[in-house]
Amino acid sequence: MRVQPDQLTAFCATVLGRAGVPEVVARTVSESLVYADLRGVESHGVVRTEIYLRRVAEGMVDPHAETRLVQDNGCTALADGGNNFGAYVGAVALDLAMDRAQQHGICALGVRNSNHFGTGAFYVQRAVERGLALIVMSNASQTMPSTGGVRPFLGTNPIAFGFPTSRQVPFVLDMATSVVARGKIIVAAKRGETIPPGWAVDRHGNPTTDAEAALEGALLPLGGPKGSGLSMAIDILSGVLTGAGFGPSVRNMYEDWAEPQNVGHFFMVLDIARFLPLAAFTERLGQYIDLMKAEPRASGVEEILYAGEREYRLEAHHRCDGIELPERLAADLQALGERYSVNWIG
Amino acid sequence: MRVQPDQLTAFCATVLGRAGVPEVVARTVSESLVYADLRGVESHGVVRTEIYLRRVAEGMVDPHAETRLVQDNGCTALADGGNNFGAYVGAVALDLAMDRAQQHGICALGVRNSNHFGTGAFYVQRAVERGLALIVMSNASQTMPSTGGVRPFLGTNPIAFGFPTSRQVPFVLDMATSVVARGKIIVAAKRGETIPPGWAVDRHGNPTTDAEAALEGALLPLGGPKGSGLSMAIDILSGVLTGAGFGPSVRNMYEDWAEPQNVGHFFMVLDIARFLPLAAFTERLGQYIDLMKAEPRASGVEEILYAGEREYRLEAHHRCDGIELPERLAADLQALGERYSVNWIG
Repeated sequence: MRVQPDQLTAFCATVLGRAGVPEVVARTVSESLVYADLRGVESHGVVRTEIYLRRVAEGMVDPHAETRLVQDNGCTALADGGNNFGAYVGAVALDLAMDRAQQHGICALGVRNSNHFGTGAFYVQRAVERGLALIVMSNASQTMPSTGGVRPFLGTNPIAFGFPTSRQVPFVLDMATSVVARGKIIVAAKRGETIPPGWAVDRHGNPTTDAEAALEGALLPLGGPKGSGLSMAIDILSGVLTGAGFGPSVRNMYEDWAEPQNVGHFFMVLDIARFLPLAAFTERLGQYIDLMKAEPRASGVEEILYAGEREYRLEAHHRCDGIELPERLAADLQALGERYSVNWIG
Repeated sequence: MRVQPDQLTAFCATVLGRAGVPEVVARTVSESLVYADLRGVESHGVVRTEIYLRRVAEGMVDPHAETRLVQDNGCTALADGGNNFGAYVGAVALDLAMDRAQQHGICALGVRNSNHFGTGAFYVQRAVERGLALIVMSNASQTMPSTGGVRPFLGTNPIAFGFPTSRQVPFVLDMATSVVARGKIIVAAKRGETIPPGWAVDRHGNPTTDAEAALEGALLPLGGPKGSGLSMAIDILSGVLTGAGFGPSVRNMYEDWAEPQNVGHFFMVLDIARFLPLAAFTERLGQYIDLMKAEPRASGVEEILYAGEREYRLEAHHRCDGIELPERLAADLQALGERYSVNWIG
């Protein structure tokens, strides 16, 4: 089933609203979810509406909380999200960090007491539209053993980088610190396929190519000790530094119903113009991309793409032609709508 | 052959001095090289003395240049290294960035017109000793194809993170964005050893385990498109933003004798105390590490280590018992000493 992104956003926002989420929060959260679907990152898309609603219903998220500063030093600050939705807390925090970066040249803003904040590209996009560079990180609940360990200990703690370019498409690198997203293993398991070696371990910590065994086990960090260290560094900035949870104390959104997640984020916004004129920067980055695209290509490669380009094209395509929702997801959303007396799209 | 680190530093500094490098520059560069050997990162150690001397002799490095600020905004700044040695430029830049971070809470300092700056841990160590957090990046000459390409296009652009802990050993993650550092392949080639599959391709883009063929070919980025994107993001901050070279315009230290390297760096220093008291931060990070170390271990793993711990132990061991230099390297250094009328150690 194909749906227009605006309709999908309105549907999700209305459902969230009926569940008691204030309009501005419902709107921001829905925009974040639909934005992920627009970019082909379905794992962070409207498929999460249901779990988000359950978190509110169980009192695990407080959709009325304001995000407030608990430390403020101008170019550095620390915010407390009051346990509101991560996408809302993150959007409020980003707006503040962007204002501060334009005022001071840079802003490093830590955030604690937040929740799953969706796709990093949602924030990156907003920063590059204002001609700013952004590095954003978040911690996450445990899914990967650290190097030498067996059980999930580290989150797949994501990091995203965004830079404006002279081209239509900004540079947007939005990555988890695992080799692959768990969603890819779910897909392989559903299809009865094996997974390549190096993606995951089973629940005994042994390497496996069995997708089902991998789902009971743990994802592996990107590049062994490097990914393990990178995931931990992101957690140190997002969790240890901010007063949020870190490691085991970041709660699982799907499994922990006793306590809020206490996710932490870290935003670093840079005013490019303090280094060189924005146009010179975007021009230089455009040249870089041109050179990269002109390189000889590996066999079977039609075009060399830079970070965010594939997702940008998907977004453009989906904005025109609508987002294709799998039948089961559409049915789930429709059922969710019925529960809150909200008509499904169409 | 075993040498005391102080003797090795003095030897290298004296040789560099005889080659016309001012004392403070010679000292800093030698300390950076020996620091890498102390930590077991031989690829960035005194093995590079010879190429550093050749760069000076050929006029490719100006050891007399001062590092000066070309943009200054307090919490952001841009420095020009005047084409001096990277370790010296980096050390001067870091001192400035640390002062600024203590004054303002954060400092993002870009550096252009520099050279190969050695191991990132050299800078990280200095920052954590002052209770500061550091993220430092550098670009490097082309050694890896970007995803979809064949020829070397991106550098193995390294990134390092450092945080003080409540334990004796700080968190120091110092990593190249390749599967392994090129230096490790240089060491293997010098020793006549093969390299594991997955590290590199030959000059035709085919996988190889031959270290010499790999040096003529290309390293592979960490985790495919993720490492490729991360390398480019580091180059954007270190090169595009600073006015240094980027991509192909960062010259190869070993192969390009017509132009300076024009390497760029990016330092981001954070004053932890602006977020929470330093002791609370180090205590929290200590707890994190304790929890990680208490995890069940994979078979054959005696202890779960965090980033920088193995290197710290090597450093302590080498400071006590001396650094073991391979016979061939010791002979090369001795010959280098003779050329500059400097007695070899012992």
